[in-house]
Amino acid sequence: MIGIDWGTSSLRAYHLDAAGAVIARLETDQGILKVPQGGFREVLRALIDPWLLGGETLVLLCGMVGSRQGWQEAPYLPCPAGPEEIAQALTPLEFDGARCLLVPGLSTADRAGAPDVMRGEETKLIGLLAELGDAAAVACLPGTHSKWARLVGGRIAGFATHMTGEVRATLLAHSILGRLAEPGEETPGTDLAFLRGVRRAREPGGLLHHLFGTRALGLMGRLAPADTDAYLSGLLIGHEVASALADGPLPGPVHLVGSERLCRLYALAFGEAGLAHRPHDADLVAKGLARVARSLG
Amino acid sequence: MIGIDWGTSSLRAYHLDAAGAVIARLETDQGILKVPQGGFREVLRALIDPWLLGGETLVLLCGMVGSRQGWQEAPYLPCPAGPEEIAQALTPLEFDGARCLLVPGLSTADRAGAPDVMRGEETKLIGLLAELGDAAAVACLPGTHSKWARLVGGRIAGFATHMTGEVRATLLAHSILGRLAEPGEETPGTDLAFLRGVRRAREPGGLLHHLFGTRALGLMGRLAPADTDAYLSGLLIGHEVASALADGPLPGPVHLVGSERLCRLYALAFGEAGLAHRPHDADLVAKGLARVARSLG
Repeated sequence: MIGIDWGTSSLRAYHLDAAGAVIARLETDQGILKVPQGGFREVLRALIDPWLLGGETLVLLCGMVGSRQGWQEAPYLPCPAGPEEIAQALTPLEFDGARCLLVPGLSTADRAGAPDVMRGEETKLIGLLAELGDAAAVACLPGTHSKWARLVGGRIAGFATHMTGEVRATLLAHSILGRLAEPGEETPGTDLAFLRGVRRAREPGGLLHHLFGTRALGLMGRLAPADTDAYLSGLLIGHEVASALADGPLPGPVHLVGSERLCRLYALAFGEAGLAHRPHDADLVAKGLARVARSLG
Repeated sequence: MIGIDWGTSSLRAYHLDAAGAVIARLETDQGILKVPQGGFREVLRALIDPWLLGGETLVLLCGMVGSRQGWQEAPYLPCPAGPEEIAQALTPLEFDGARCLLVPGLSTADRAGAPDVMRGEETKLIGLLAELGDAAAVACLPGTHSKWARLVGGRIAGFATHMTGEVRATLLAHSILGRLAEPGEETPGTDLAFLRGVRRAREPGGLLHHLFGTRALGLMGRLAPADTDAYLSGLLIGHEVASALADGPLPGPVHLVGSERLCRLYALAFGEAGLAHRPHDADLVAKGLARVARSLG
């Protein structure tokens, strides 16, 4: 089979054997934003044609390719959902010489009834479930829109998204905080500034006050311009972690899935909060696609 | 005397009689960002020349004109500070035919030692103190950087800034939330969307999660594009108010000082939080400048 993780800014293709092991992989920057309207089929064919055998190769696609801006919209599947529910909710795509199916995103509602959505992360979580089995667990997938998911009985029970990465990038690029910041080399001092931000997040005042405080520290000469970005990251990630922990104790270590850079920062923040964690391979998505294929039979 | 409120994007000049009543006022869009380097003296002279009498007219200036980006930097004065302390900390400016003095901004530190600053708002608060006297009170000055100040014994005891207005504007202009929003006419429904945001802010999850939830509501068709801005405002103002109230009960109604549009929204949020408030004239700045002049003797 072939697994495709087609996101906003990149495309990863995995050629998998019958046991789900990766035989070959390709990565391009042809994220869905770079694909002209109606051009998804050709981009995919050019990429995977050498892997297609006679007959009907199974191609499973996940990520933003299934969003309104993608190839075709795959409706959100409500939580709780595991590999079986997802395998039953795949959306077929027209594609000659292969059986192309879209993995749905997931939706959830918190206790107050407020909705949340994910698209792409559900497949990584299915890959994580393939490693963890049925035990209750919590996973954190840091990123532009960080996800915290509760895993129960081999399924994704629910999740919450935090706009941490996008808020950081937006404020740095377009607010008074960015005018204060100067790019600097990463030094041991950068981590200290990050941890200062994490600790500040645990003090009273609220995020909107702490954000302005970043400027006040700069004006008072108590935060170096080169440390502003790290402090701001610490502040935002610290608030995210505090909110994620507000529901009570976790059932075990936080299972951390993401880029090396972000996972290192989140591990620092978890350490500051006295929280154990376990890092996982970011390539869980291939494992998740293989697991869904197995449920498909 | 002449009072000048010279901010980032506007300049207001007040001609005041000996009792502090406004004889005449002028307003221009020549905020400090529009004044060329070294050009502050000429801009001021062109504006107030008709008001200058023989001898040394007193001209008191407050606002961002005293910042690093302004005419001259007036160092921050630490809280607690009232009209007497401010009158003793004025910074003289060179100006022929008038005695020009800059009002300092204020600095404060919270219980954790984190600094905060204001510049311009201190003068409005002095004007408010002239109305309220020595009783303990809390004032809220909504805006790009909202200020909450504690007034005790006729002085500004301390304050906290929330980056509410700037975060809203930045996210609307540059984040995924803005791509969701569509401008719409203000209707009774706009206030309902604002109040939905205020109520959401009181639920668990944290601001970064609630922000992403705005998008999830939109994707699920549960928040109209024309209501997104109002809902986001409610969310942010709701979080600001909750943080400001986290310290315990207030000594009385919140004294609300700001633009009509913002004060109306904050009044709605206060109502939702069961909080009494008293509106005040936004022209408190002239009263504050007159009060500082009286302390100057």
